[in-house]
Amino acid sequence: MKTYADLWIGYKERKANRDCTQLGKFYLSGADKADKIVKNAVEELKTGLKAMLDVEPKIVFGEAAAPEEITNGKAILDSEEYRISLREDCVAIESKSGAGILYGVFDVLRTVACEKEIGKTYAAGKRVRPANPLRMLDHWDNMDGSIERGYSGESFFYVNNEIVINERTRDYARMIAAVGINGVVINNVNVKQAASYMITDRYFDKLTELGEIFAGYGIRLFLSLNYASTIEIGGLDSADPLDENVIAWWKDKMAEVFRRIPTLGGFLVKADSEGRPGPFTYGRTQVDGANMLADIVKEYNGIIIWRCFVYNCRQDWRDKKTDRARAGYDNFMPMDGDYHDNVILQIKNGPMDFQIREPISPLLGGLKKTNQMLEVQIAQEYTGHQIDVCYLIPEFKEILGFKTYCKESDDTVADIISGNTFENRYCGIAAVTNTGNDFNWTGNYLAGANLYGFGRLAFGTGLSSKEIAEEFVRMTISQDKEVVDQIVNILLPSREIYERYTSPLGIGWMVQPATHYGCSVDGYEYDRWGTYHRADHLGIGVDRTDKGTGYALQYNEPNASMYNDPEKCPDELVLFFHHLPYTHKLHSGKTVIQHIYDTHFEGYEEARQLAKEWYQLKGKIDDVIFENVSERFERQLINAREWCDQVNSYFFRKSGIPDEKGRQIW
Amino acid sequence: MKTYADLWIGYKERKANRDCTQLGKFYLSGADKADKIVKNAVEELKTGLKAMLDVEPKIVFGEAAAPEEITNGKAILDSEEYRISLREDCVAIESKSGAGILYGVFDVLRTVACEKEIGKTYAAGKRVRPANPLRMLDHWDNMDGSIERGYSGESFFYVNNEIVINERTRDYARMIAAVGINGVVINNVNVKQAASYMITDRYFDKLTELGEIFAGYGIRLFLSLNYASTIEIGGLDSADPLDENVIAWWKDKMAEVFRRIPTLGGFLVKADSEGRPGPFTYGRTQVDGANMLADIVKEYNGIIIWRCFVYNCRQDWRDKKTDRARAGYDNFMPMDGDYHDNVILQIKNGPMDFQIREPISPLLGGLKKTNQMLEVQIAQEYTGHQIDVCYLIPEFKEILGFKTYCKESDDTVADIISGNTFENRYCGIAAVTNTGNDFNWTGNYLAGANLYGFGRLAFGTGLSSKEIAEEFVRMTISQDKEVVDQIVNILLPSREIYERYTSPLGIGWMVQPATHYGCSVDGYEYDRWGTYHRADHLGIGVDRTDKGTGYALQYNEPNASMYNDPEKCPDELVLFFHHLPYTHKLHSGKTVIQHIYDTHFEGYEEARQLAKEWYQLKGKIDDVIFENVSERFERQLINAREWCDQVNSYFFRKSGIPDEKGRQIW
Repeated sequence: MKTYADLWIGYKERKANRDCTQLGKFYLSGADKADKIVKNAVEELKTGLKAMLDVEPKIVFGEAAAPEEITNGKAILDSEEYRISLREDCVAIESKSGAGILYGVFDVLRTVACEKEIGKTYAAGKRVRPANPLRMLDHWDNMDGSIERGYSGESFFYVNNEIVINERTRDYARMIAAVGINGVVINNVNVKQAASYMITDRYFDKLTELGEIFAGYGIRLFLSLNYASTIEIGGLDSADPLDENVIAWWKDKMAEVFRRIPTLGGFLVKADSEGRPGPFTYGRTQVDGANMLADIVKEYNGIIIWRCFVYNCRQDWRDKKTDRARAGYDNFMPMDGDYHDNVILQIKNGPMDFQIREPISPLLGGLKKTNQMLEVQIAQEYTGHQIDVCYLIPEFKEILGFKTYCKESDDTVADIISGNTFENRYCGIAAVTNTGNDFNWTGNYLAGANLYGFGRLAFGTGLSSKEIAEEFVRMTISQDKEVVDQIVNILLPSREIYERYTSPLGIGWMVQPATHYGCSVDGYEYDRWGTYHRADHLGIGVDRTDKGTGYALQYNEPNASMYNDPEKCPDELVLFFHHLPYTHKLHSGKTVIQHIYDTHFEGYEEARQLAKEWYQLKGKIDDVIFENVSERFERQLINAREWCDQVNSYFFRKSGIPDEKGRQIW
Repeated sequence: MKTYADLWIGYKERKANRDCTQLGKFYLSGADKADKIVKNAVEELKTGLKAMLDVEPKIVFGEAAAPEEITNGKAILDSEEYRISLREDCVAIESKSGAGILYGVFDVLRTVACEKEIGKTYAAGKRVRPANPLRMLDHWDNMDGSIERGYSGESFFYVNNEIVINERTRDYARMIAAVGINGVVINNVNVKQAASYMITDRYFDKLTELGEIFAGYGIRLFLSLNYASTIEIGGLDSADPLDENVIAWWKDKMAEVFRRIPTLGGFLVKADSEGRPGPFTYGRTQVDGANMLADIVKEYNGIIIWRCFVYNCRQDWRDKKTDRARAGYDNFMPMDGDYHDNVILQIKNGPMDFQIREPISPLLGGLKKTNQMLEVQIAQEYTGHQIDVCYLIPEFKEILGFKTYCKESDDTVADIISGNTFENRYCGIAAVTNTGNDFNWTGNYLAGANLYGFGRLAFGTGLSSKEIAEEFVRMTISQDKEVVDQIVNILLPSREIYERYTSPLGIGWMVQPATHYGCSVDGYEYDRWGTYHRADHLGIGVDRTDKGTGYALQYNEPNASMYNDPEKCPDELVLFFHHLPYTHKLHSGKTVIQHIYDTHFEGYEEARQLAKEWYQLKGKIDDVIFENVSERFERQLINAREWCDQVNSYFFRKSGIPDEKGRQIW
């Protein structure tokens, strides 16, 4: 008996496609049949079809039918593009790489699992190239087994400072390969204690083994690096990136690391942030730090992913000039173009930290000569701890579709991180993952939609939130159309509902300090983290215009002018950019205060409605899933009620302005 | 080299009294010279005089000169009264008990240590009877070594779930005996994990040894008891106090416990509070629970100290009817007179929980037929964590001097807990202690004044805050009059200064949740603990009058009428009892809002002034003490600044009313 759910690689019996003759034979072409990935692909295909349709396909290898049509795209490692076509007696999957074959196999399996018709789906041929070269999951797992911002149990990579490899490890690789993930950072960006020793003999054997398993599914292993390794494990007294001894130590160390872990893709580095060491300590720049490491790992085809989450985390709430939102741009823009080719700057979607609503970071589309990777968070740190249902794909779609105006066309975030805009090869998207060793991997079964959806979206930016949600439900919960629709209808509006009962108009941060779950309107108002709403008896919001902190001007035009002007700024972000009276009229026609009251009452009611819809599924889906999500909904409603009542009370008590509709405010 | 400071039993060289001939001989009378306490007293006397004056006194034992004059008072165990007189060739110390002799010896040593003249002090004879029968310290030490609300390091009683007995243990007994403590509860009232096994064979040997050491200094050992012991260690399925099996189990258990720990004084019980088990679980009363245990321990002269800290800790902030302040009275008054004679109800000084300013609990002077013990807290949970200087003796003096009007005279809290008012034998005062294994015992050297002062005040209620402070400084820091005055001048106003820069007008609870250090005005405003200030844009405070929760009416008249009327209610408590507009005029002539601004600006400035005065002591006192307190003052000023600015900003932002004096509000 497995101790964890199979989610979308569960391959239960399916009814459709049973009489599809082509599924009896597969023609795989273009890749080396001895390739480990191809072998895994074949095994997956056989297992899946046997389980779902009781079909045992014959596998034929051959020359690629039209190899010239399969391009290398912008892939870093190898072409990941694939083509699926139906022939008279078989399904043909063609790719230049094992990974492409694997993705083609998962495409077929997904079609079967979703009970879509093979004939219709592939009749005209289907050719797919992943949208983003790098599609990564970042684990914030600590080696003691805890997970920073983890809401799904403990780590399945570590127990008691040892790396654990077992059946679950392989199934994890299968599961994320099935949605197109090709890179995993297995340790917390805050590299401390035992994790600093990842790049020493203590862990090499296990990492090699883990890297091989991942590689078999087209996934590159990455590690978070302690920037101060020269001091902490090297015995030097400096981590100055221009110091010769430091450079020499890193050269030796990297030679050793890449020799011992041949599958290693490179490193993720959080430097000079929230107390982590970095080049600033030595009067050097982020460029100095990143390039030093990148130059050394280049000969091993390694890359350095450098996080842009650098800000002053010892702010004074009395100081209205310093603006944390500015920090990423201020720190990284001046050296656009100075980073070497195998450095990628990893940029959080917003300028703050994964709030339920933030503007897009102005670095995205600001930087024009630097490799960029978008970082989003599917771990629901500020979005409900996988207790509250919050389907994040609609948010990610908004982010990817945002026009940065960095060029006349091809200027969306999706264009930039795919390499389309500036022809970068090293770029892509990463998510702080929401997994743990809970039975269902993500705490709340429905949070699995974010894991599934992130991978699918990273691979195919064009997919809609609805398509992805439907796929997730069909692959993991039910084929019953009514059930599918009902769950999809719960998922789709859930992020906006969470936004409505929590933090209004882009203001963010009204959360319980430290845990980040539950309401505390003033929780971060007088703290050191640069997270203020500045509410007084007349109004609320942060003036980030040219008359305030100037943050709005970090955007390209016309975004800068739009955000700078309260009359043009979109309602949902208006308090992020402006300090406005409670009586200010929004585009919606409502005043700020009435908007706060309305959205909170509505958000809570809508959450109740979601729960009601869920409870109707009793008996129609697996009991384990039903009970798991039901229990979460109970907690979500308590949470939503507190948010609704506390936020409304807070602003009524502060403004003295009554609700137009006379509802109960405590 | 000792790993801890000797504080007031350090016995350094003293100049005064060097030529006092009587100190060469001591006549001890009335007690058994073979008594262990007498032996310890003699040793203490010899050590002290040798160290301070280089005198080696001759000790003579004899009949009590006037035994009829030494009464038994209300002491539970034995007379603790003593008389000191000067004869031609000796100092005579007379008592009916070893403890009295010991206290007499400490009296002489204190006189010497403070460089007061022996002649003047004792010429007319000095006869002292301790004010309170029980003078206890309650340790909230956990057996894993941690201390709940401990700010002075780890426990010196426990390491790793074992009881530790060493030189420090004995010196602790000496130190607290020197200030008159005669009872110690050595484990946290929240009895969990290993501590539940205190009453099993696992710990009997060590407890016996510890009890003997304490007994040698007139101190009774007490334990906190897990009310659910029958279930947790007894294997029964109930803790119902009327269940025959439960009673039988306790009978056997108590017989065993008192046989194995013959010095044991009894037990402290926290039942039905903050998640702890208790008789309510079984539909029984607090009386049922307390009497059941008391009846069983009676034959061993044991007593049951039952805490009155029982309230609903799952309140709803939306509920304005339920009032935590009412809970103690509501729970315990109806059964006044039902508690058996060896039960003592232990009552916190205020109805909430050790805030910097609270009214006196209406149980004190409400209960008329029940043994009562006052509980105060010298652990600075809400009063600065032994970072901020906060000399609490003036507060305790206020509490003790409070007129409850339970009788026409002898109606103060001091009268009640001493047994004076209602002729109780089992009564007294307890403090949640502030000690730990820090070098200086109390984290901040100056917090030692609260440990010292609590004992002294418990023994001699008539002592003034200033006398006690002077003694403390002279005995532990310096004989230099200028230094003494300077430190006393820091200590004396420190509690009111702390009050001024923190929570105004009796409102309390504006602290960081969980830690209880630092400002968070709304920190407990929407929580489940019954701790609300109800501030809105017009006013602040909790209506506890007859029109509100009715709490004010729990007092005897005329206190009830005084508190019920905002015009009569003392300013410092006015927001505890009333919800008032910011524009309400206080007796001081100031409005509420102006009072808030003024006290906060002043409090911060006064804290700066205290620090300045302290820094002037550099070079004039021991460097270790100077540095310790200086470092704390640095942190206190940061804390005071935050309180000042956050409270002022909060209320300015809420009320919109500017400071009359135009000072900077952020």
